[in-house]
Amino acid sequence: MTCERDEATTNELRHDWLADRWVIIAPQRTERPDDFVRQPVEPADGADCPFCRGREDNTPAAVASYTGRHSSLAWDVRVVPNKFPAVNAPLVGVESSYLPPRSGGSNGNRQTESIDLFRRRDLSGGHEVIVESPLHVQSISQLDREATGLIFEAYRDRLRYWLNDRRLEYAVLFKNVGEDAGASLAHTHSQLIATDMLPTDVERAVRRMRLFADQEASCLFCRMAEDELEQGSRLVEQTPDFLAFCPFASRLPSLVTILPKTHQSEFEKISNAQLEQLSWLTHRLVRRIERCYPDRAYNFVIHTAPACEQGSEAFHWRLEIFPRLTKVAGFEWGSDCYINPLAPEMAAAALRQAGV
Amino acid sequence: MTCERDEATTNELRHDWLADRWVIIAPQRTERPDDFVRQPVEPADGADCPFCRGREDNTPAAVASYTGRHSSLAWDVRVVPNKFPAVNAPLVGVESSYLPPRSGGSNGNRQTESIDLFRRRDLSGGHEVIVESPLHVQSISQLDREATGLIFEAYRDRLRYWLNDRRLEYAVLFKNVGEDAGASLAHTHSQLIATDMLPTDVERAVRRMRLFADQEASCLFCRMAEDELEQGSRLVEQTPDFLAFCPFASRLPSLVTILPKTHQSEFEKISNAQLEQLSWLTHRLVRRIERCYPDRAYNFVIHTAPACEQGSEAFHWRLEIFPRLTKVAGFEWGSDCYINPLAPEMAAAALRQAGV
Repeated sequence: MTCERDEATTNELRHDWLADRWVIIAPQRTERPDDFVRQPVEPADGADCPFCRGREDNTPAAVASYTGRHSSLAWDVRVVPNKFPAVNAPLVGVESSYLPPRSGGSNGNRQTESIDLFRRRDLSGGHEVIVESPLHVQSISQLDREATGLIFEAYRDRLRYWLNDRRLEYAVLFKNVGEDAGASLAHTHSQLIATDMLPTDVERAVRRMRLFADQEASCLFCRMAEDELEQGSRLVEQTPDFLAFCPFASRLPSLVTILPKTHQSEFEKISNAQLEQLSWLTHRLVRRIERCYPDRAYNFVIHTAPACEQGSEAFHWRLEIFPRLTKVAGFEWGSDCYINPLAPEMAAAALRQAGV
Repeated sequence: MTCERDEATTNELRHDWLADRWVIIAPQRTERPDDFVRQPVEPADGADCPFCRGREDNTPAAVASYTGRHSSLAWDVRVVPNKFPAVNAPLVGVESSYLPPRSGGSNGNRQTESIDLFRRRDLSGGHEVIVESPLHVQSISQLDREATGLIFEAYRDRLRYWLNDRRLEYAVLFKNVGEDAGASLAHTHSQLIATDMLPTDVERAVRRMRLFADQEASCLFCRMAEDELEQGSRLVEQTPDFLAFCPFASRLPSLVTILPKTHQSEFEKISNAQLEQLSWLTHRLVRRIERCYPDRAYNFVIHTAPACEQGSEAFHWRLEIFPRLTKVAGFEWGSDCYINPLAPEMAAAALRQAGV
């Protein structure tokens, strides 16, 4: 079951079953000339960084903090409400009483008498920042194993906190590193957004996972994990409980998906031992990516079950991590069809070879 | 029917009816600090530019060229096959005999016995570059009215050429200006991609337009054009036959849509007089955007009817133009829900005030 084509030179379409979307894999595009000299973006030196130790007054008060066993500091990881939130609700001392009742669905087009092209509504929920070190460190790859583990503890706790609020529909944990990945501050941090609205494309993904489970009597990602382990050509690394691979129909070059090998719908319910394994696997993947693509921006995203899928047999959580090597250009905005110039098999080989 | 909220400060959700997607309008986000000092990207000086006059041998042979009435040059606009195509087919001297028969809707998930997570297929069609000046000019805003008109003639002719090939499903014309918009060369140019596959999201948009037409006995964009002209707050400019406005639920800040005021499904069928009006309106919008956001990258895209919608009462062509002011970050990749920090009413006011 290995790939028979020459992935290095053949353009082709691949179908992303989950998104039900074709992706163009176009290795010939990598030979293009480039007029634009990339200037390394110089981040500020941290002299005014609001996330550094001693400047806690520059952020809203912490809602949680974590300290390592042998640490002498007041905190090693600190969670604060985002000072510039994308959602409306106040966030300090939350008992969520400000939240409206869950809207029950909300995305479907109501069959009213006349279609309203100007629908608007309030958005409630939470928007938090996880500050991942008291020092002006810019990547988790500079942290040790215990510090990395603490960060993932914070991810788990905060996702659990927000998804336990029954008035909310959705929560996502994400990290933007570097300007091209959407970061505005260089100090290592991640963010969590929780909303009382289930985004349309997440709802579509949920429907696809349910469809797969109905037709195949198996979870989509359980099947995919088995297939990727068997085929091997897109595998980057595995641990006893997780695998990391470059998905067959990635929209972006060198995107890596981490899956638990056995079925789990909610990231926030994983055990301490698994959390430790996952956090260090992610750390190693960041180092692989940084070796292959020095100074490039990257993102990661934890897709856990939205409220409607808690305990689901169809939904399987995943972590996606992707360096920002290409730009979203006019064709992609026009068609929502992506051109990925690096075949996932080639990407996986390069990441495997980037020893850690 | 004017907007009653304070668009400058209130976060809210707005529904994009066409995409059936909620967008977060979050003006509070514009106050964020910024660690990253933006270095102006220095494009090459053109000494090796393959698009300049005299270097025609550096590209494949032209498939079409255009010369102004009073021009003494061999060409003012030149269309060549893309040397680094995203689609497989050879492109020179096309009679399209290499293309496979039209696949007949291709996106649906076939109800086969077992779901195949590794579907792949060839992609055929065309990928062309429209070189928009013999000189090393970097924006159409530096060209005069006649030169701009010639470019739009090329757009119309090439879209017509490809969409006349009955084995193709889809064609899109797009422009990437600046590195952040996905350009690899600075010399002013646009691109056309035609495929024998209808991208999933275009198919979804077609279904939404048909649904609107069925329910409302009116075309979606005919209705929207009326509403935008009546409300006025998002209008940037109008001509006798076109209007330009910032759509109510834009995913991106300062995105402008141009619509013909009366129903037209196919851009490539517009009259010479309308083409001249449209090309100069687009030129003015580029100048407005360049005044508001100097040195920022931008894209534009012409969404014309795919093969299945030719002559359709439901599909209305449009041109979208958008500066690249924000980055697609982890939240957007995770949820496909976009955070737009600039309310469209504010964006339109700024663009109106940027006199041309």
